[in-house]
Amino acid sequence: MSGIYDVAILGSGPGGLQAAIHSSRKKARVLMLGRIDNSSLYWAHVENYCCQVKISGEEVLRTGREQAENFGTEFRDEDVLTIEPDGSLFSIKLESGDVVKSKTVILATGSSRNKLKVPGEKELLGKGVSYCVDCDAGFYRDEIVAVAGCRSAAAGGAVALTNFASEVHLYCEELDVAEGLRKQLIDTGVHVHEGVKIEEILGETAVTGVKLDDGSTMDVSGVFIELGAKGVLELTAMLGVQLDENMKYIEADKKQRTSVPGVYAAGDICGPPLQMAKAVGEGCVAGIEAATYAKKMEVE
Amino acid sequence: MSGIYDVAILGSGPGGLQAAIHSSRKKARVLMLGRIDNSSLYWAHVENYCCQVKISGEEVLRTGREQAENFGTEFRDEDVLTIEPDGSLFSIKLESGDVVKSKTVILATGSSRNKLKVPGEKELLGKGVSYCVDCDAGFYRDEIVAVAGCRSAAAGGAVALTNFASEVHLYCEELDVAEGLRKQLIDTGVHVHEGVKIEEILGETAVTGVKLDDGSTMDVSGVFIELGAKGVLELTAMLGVQLDENMKYIEADKKQRTSVPGVYAAGDICGPPLQMAKAVGEGCVAGIEAATYAKKMEVE
Ligand SMILES: Cc1cc2nc3c(=O)[nH]c(=O)nc-3n(C[C@H](O)[C@H](O)[C@H](O)COP(=O)(O)OP(=O)(O)OC[C@H]3O[C@@H](n4cnc5c(N)ncnc54)[C@H](O)[C@@H]3O)c2cc1C
Ligand SMILES: Cc1cc2nc3c(=O)[nH]c(=O)nc-3n(C[C@H](O)[C@H](O)[C@H](O)COP(=O)(O)OP(=O)(O)OC[C@H]3O[C@@H](n4cnc5c(N)ncnc54)[C@H](O)[C@@H]3O)c2cc1C
Repeated sequence: MSGIYDVAILGSGPGGLQAAIHSSRKKARVLMLGRIDNSSLYWAHVENYCCQVKISGEEVLRTGREQAENFGTEFRDEDVLTIEPDGSLFSIKLESGDVVKSKTVILATGSSRNKLKVPGEKELLGKGVSYCVDCDAGFYRDEIVAVAGCRSAAAGGAVALTNFASEVHLYCEELDVAEGLRKQLIDTGVHVHEGVKIEEILGETAVTGVKLDDGSTMDVSGVFIELGAKGVLELTAMLGVQLDENMKYIEADKKQRTSVPGVYAAGDICGPPLQMAKAVGEGCVAGIEAATYAKKMEVE
Repeated sequence: MSGIYDVAILGSGPGGLQAAIHSSRKKARVLMLGRIDNSSLYWAHVENYCCQVKISGEEVLRTGREQAENFGTEFRDEDVLTIEPDGSLFSIKLESGDVVKSKTVILATGSSRNKLKVPGEKELLGKGVSYCVDCDAGFYRDEIVAVAGCRSAAAGGAVALTNFASEVHLYCEELDVAEGLRKQLIDTGVHVHEGVKIEEILGETAVTGVKLDDGSTMDVSGVFIELGAKGVLELTAMLGVQLDENMKYIEADKKQRTSVPGVYAAGDICGPPLQMAKAVGEGCVAGIEAATYAKKMEVE
């Protein structure tokens, strides 16, 4: 419980779990923080992660936790409220009010997606509502789908969906994309409804349609919300960790080091592609690097 | 079968497989090359890969292949002998003699440098013992040389050596190469000794001969050990891909781009940590990037 950890990992998604496995294997004392059911993966069904044909996110996370625990990782299912530098260590304040200290920190808190904030969105997440065209397009073969968003993420997503869906409807107040992409929308037959907003996502156990702000409804079996991945992490501001030019993601190098010595980052928080495979790869590197850094501090 | 691929992936280990999954999901036309049983993982038992508690390498590779196939990846279980730029494309020559063309290439050939494990090998490294025909063939003009190995690297190396050496002897338990390459061995006059193994490399300050397991010896001044497929050094030399400062691994950026546009790299070939998780992460990024690059070429 008390004492100083070698590695504190914020986030128990695939990035954090792989970091825990690799740092624990290096005999570091590792603490993992965060709630498993806040991982983006929790409600997902994954079929593009090597090498498992089809897995549920929840199952993945539970297995990963068991693995990390077997190698000695300690767990606290609490969110972190603040992190502060504390001499050569980091002081981490938890939801419960407890404070833990660690020689290194791995930020693996994912990237929360921008919400449309309409009724039905939360209720039907994973049941027809998706924030990731690249992940879920394949589930909508020959179906009619809607896309919400005005930028390149939404327009590009709509174009990609035409490879699968029979009809793709893009709803957006004012399309804001480059000419090339606008042309692709036309060429691929995407139905662009400019000036029309989705007001509600309809369905009981699965998406059946969308209600629009012009009073009409449209039958669809999928709604892709592509408003762009969301912004700056409050936690990193406290540490002075440098973000990328759009202030959206953490800037990490190939060794997953951030601009602050002893602070590493892995997974969605480092930017696209927001995929489990990438999170795991970065977690592996971050875990090894952080454990090595902590061991070096001992010697000095 | 024929036509131009969007993405050609060299190597069917976890890095290549994850790249295949992600590029195929982007509707790219993807060809995977290489033999599954040459992956470092093939004989391994893995317990540190999120999120599976304990898996056999062979099982992982077979499952990954099934996954990639489901998404549309085409497979050819052949090694690549050469890659050359061909206008805006790449021309890839296979063991069978067939040539395929692709808009992009992902190098995921791993990092194994298999040892023969016989007396004299270590002692005479660089004094007549070599692991790289393309690097060292020129030193053996008009000399007699031996090559150890049964696969494409050994057979292709032996053929290449006939341009320099006066006599080339290939020792191998059981030759395992495509018909096209077998024919080249005959045409170029390589002496193939099937069922004969090198037991010891002889010489004090330089290689003078090899002792064979049939009790005989043979005078040679060079021994080339080529137990795998063609590796990083050979294939990349042809493309002009930049290596790291130690000339051991490929230098790739965070998007897995090499110094040559259209050529990506993933996995062990990019350097440590030599771990499956890292290979998969890099494969995901390389697959997405290569598919995107190929699509852009269409538009232009
Ligand atoms: C519906 C859906 C479907 C998807 N499908 C796929 C798919 O098929 N294939 C694929 O590869 N990817 C898919 N993804 C993406 C995948 O889930 C993410 O890429 C992956 O989960 C990223 O891992 P991560 O470890 O970076 O972050 P996450 O898995 O999001 O985990 C973040 C963790 O950080 C914790 N956390 C956040 N804030 C704090 C804090 N202040 N203190 C402590 N902990 C904190 C959270 O509790 C959580 O445990 C999907 C995503 C969604 C939403
Ligand atoms: C005994 C052993 C145990 C291991 N245990 C673990 C472990 O527990 N956990 C872990 O994470 N990692 C482990 N590893 C490491 C792991 O196997 C590698 O990190 C991983 O396989 C790298 O994947 P890769 O795709 O980069 O290369 P590889 O898996 O090595 O695959 C390379 C591929 O390239 C192909 N190839 C080579 N040359 C050519 C050519 N000229 N043309 C076409 N194809 C070519 C090969 O046929 C092969 O398919 C272990 C390795 C070994 C040797």
